Amino acid sequence: MSIFSGLSAFPITPMTPAGEVIARDVAGLVRRIEDGGADSVGLLGSTGTYMFLTRAERRRAVAAAVASVTSIPVIVGVGAMRTDDACDLAQDAASEGAAGLLLAPVGYTPLKEDEVYAHFEAVASATNLPLCIYSNPDTTRFTFRPAFVGRLAEIQTVAAIKLPLPAGDLKTDLASFRAAAPALSVGYSGDWGCKDALLAGCDCWFSVAGGLFPEAASALTRAAMAGNRDEAEKLDAAFAPLWDLFRAHGSLRIVHEAARLMGLTTAELPRPLLRIDDNLRTRVASALP
Amino acid sequence: MSIFSGLSAFPITPMTPAGEVIARDVAGLVRRIEDGGADSVGLLGSTGTYMFLTRAERRRAVAAAVASVTSIPVIVGVGAMRTDDACDLAQDAASEGAAGLLLAPVGYTPLKEDEVYAHFEAVASATNLPLCIYSNPDTTRFTFRPAFVGRLAEIQTVAAIKLPLPAGDLKTDLASFRAAAPALSVGYSGDWGCKDALLAGCDCWFSVAGGLFPEAASALTRAAMAGNRDEAEKLDAAFAPLWDLFRAHGSLRIVHEAARLMGLTTAELPRPLLRIDDNLRTRVASALP
Repeated sequence: MSIFSGLSAFPITPMTPAGEVIARDVAGLVRRIEDGGADSVGLLGSTGTYMFLTRAERRRAVAAAVASVTSIPVIVGVGAMRTDDACDLAQDAASEGAAGLLLAPVGYTPLKEDEVYAHFEAVASATNLPLCIYSNPDTTRFTFRPAFVGRLAEIQTVAAIKLPLPAGDLKTDLASFRAAAPALSVGYSGDWGCKDALLAGCDCWFSVAGGLFPEAASALTRAAMAGNRDEAEKLDAAFAPLWDLFRAHGSLRIVHEAARLMGLTTAELPRPLLRIDDNLRTRVASALP
Repeated sequence: MSIFSGLSAFPITPMTPAGEVIARDVAGLVRRIEDGGADSVGLLGSTGTYMFLTRAERRRAVAAAVASVTSIPVIVGVGAMRTDDACDLAQDAASEGAAGLLLAPVGYTPLKEDEVYAHFEAVASATNLPLCIYSNPDTTRFTFRPAFVGRLAEIQTVAAIKLPLPAGDLKTDLASFRAAAPALSVGYSGDWGCKDALLAGCDCWFSVAGGLFPEAASALTRAAMAGNRDEAEKLDAAFAPLWDLFRAHGSLRIVHEAARLMGLTTAELPRPLLRIDDNLRTRVASALP
């Protein structure tokens, strides 16, 4: 089975204000994820604030995570502004024992398809690890068309795609990527819509909530993947207050505060990102499932 | 007079494929800009691909530029993903003799106003140099509202704003920022609209074309700032084929190829950015004013 299936849980990356990874907290978060029954760890995703960490610190985070799990794969985000840097990050991740890679087409100047293709080809060729295309138009301003994903799927190690929830119909969206790239594992992020995505037959939930609530998210994943709609709806409903906050404020600032409230870290977001205000913090506290 | 007035010419930053600044080429470009009559150099802007350079290389670029001009200020882009990094870059620029700073609210996760405010406050306080707010929603996905710019203008060293061409009426846009922040110098980028922005009374043209064609851009700037509409229209018309290419393909890839065609550098864009294709290159060659 693909490592890009089931529940892929994305932890935050606790760091000091100076940007040093707090390895002990990373280890604790990753261990909880494994104990909670997730199928993989999605380290250094957007939730893991990868773009705010140096190469050395990203490598330390991977080492800490890999050392802390025994039975589930650690999948590592290796996005960077420069192609050579992303290749270096991929090799670092492989050296530290990552099982797979996540690559978003990070850009300052929005990228064109030929540029993204050459970038993915270079990074995918830098290691033998299976690579997941990380589509995140909100942060990269690059939109993956199904036909373009079909082209990327021909690159040897490209194995999966992580999609955002579509503006339109989810089943149509999923079918269009399945048709264009039948060999890829197809998963979704956008936690509030992932119950429906799993019920619709996608392969993976790339989950922010899974990074903090792995048991509840695993149960929801299993129910939905088994087609048990009633059970999935019930389990999803417990997350509803959290989904509301994610949709209104973005998940990143919310889960950072939640991790603090749960006593899992005292780390704060990297500046310029700021902690949420007292009022919102109270709402987060009461929304925890 | 503010250093953020007249023609601010933005050169590319020639670099090797590995990301080392080619100091000799930077020096040559900056000298041409001064000789061509520009009022300032806008180093390490988006055109100068600042986000693709390390701190050390950005510092080398500033040193090369400052050493190559005698009478015009070098204004330096210090945008970075992390606040502490942007502060370091500002201090480096000051140490190397920059006359002013440009700061864009670079983000991976789109930033909120309070975050941008704290970021600007920190970077503005890191040196005594006058700072220009760099509004570039296409690359940062952050839009500066006039009222928010009014707040930022209260920070001691904030002295100017570089605006994108508005979707709506230019005079209304200019008036709204004048009203909200009367002490700021207000300039525009988006070369194809800057003749009109100068005729409408803005203070500065932050110009991509000025980085390669400083004489023609200076003449256009002087005519438009003097209110000589006929002359300005005539001078602007010579740029029309270039403006068409900028609008259709973005200015960055076009001016990089133009600089090669003009024999000013053999450097290529940093990967993942790619050279334009042969067909477009031919059109660039025939569009040079």
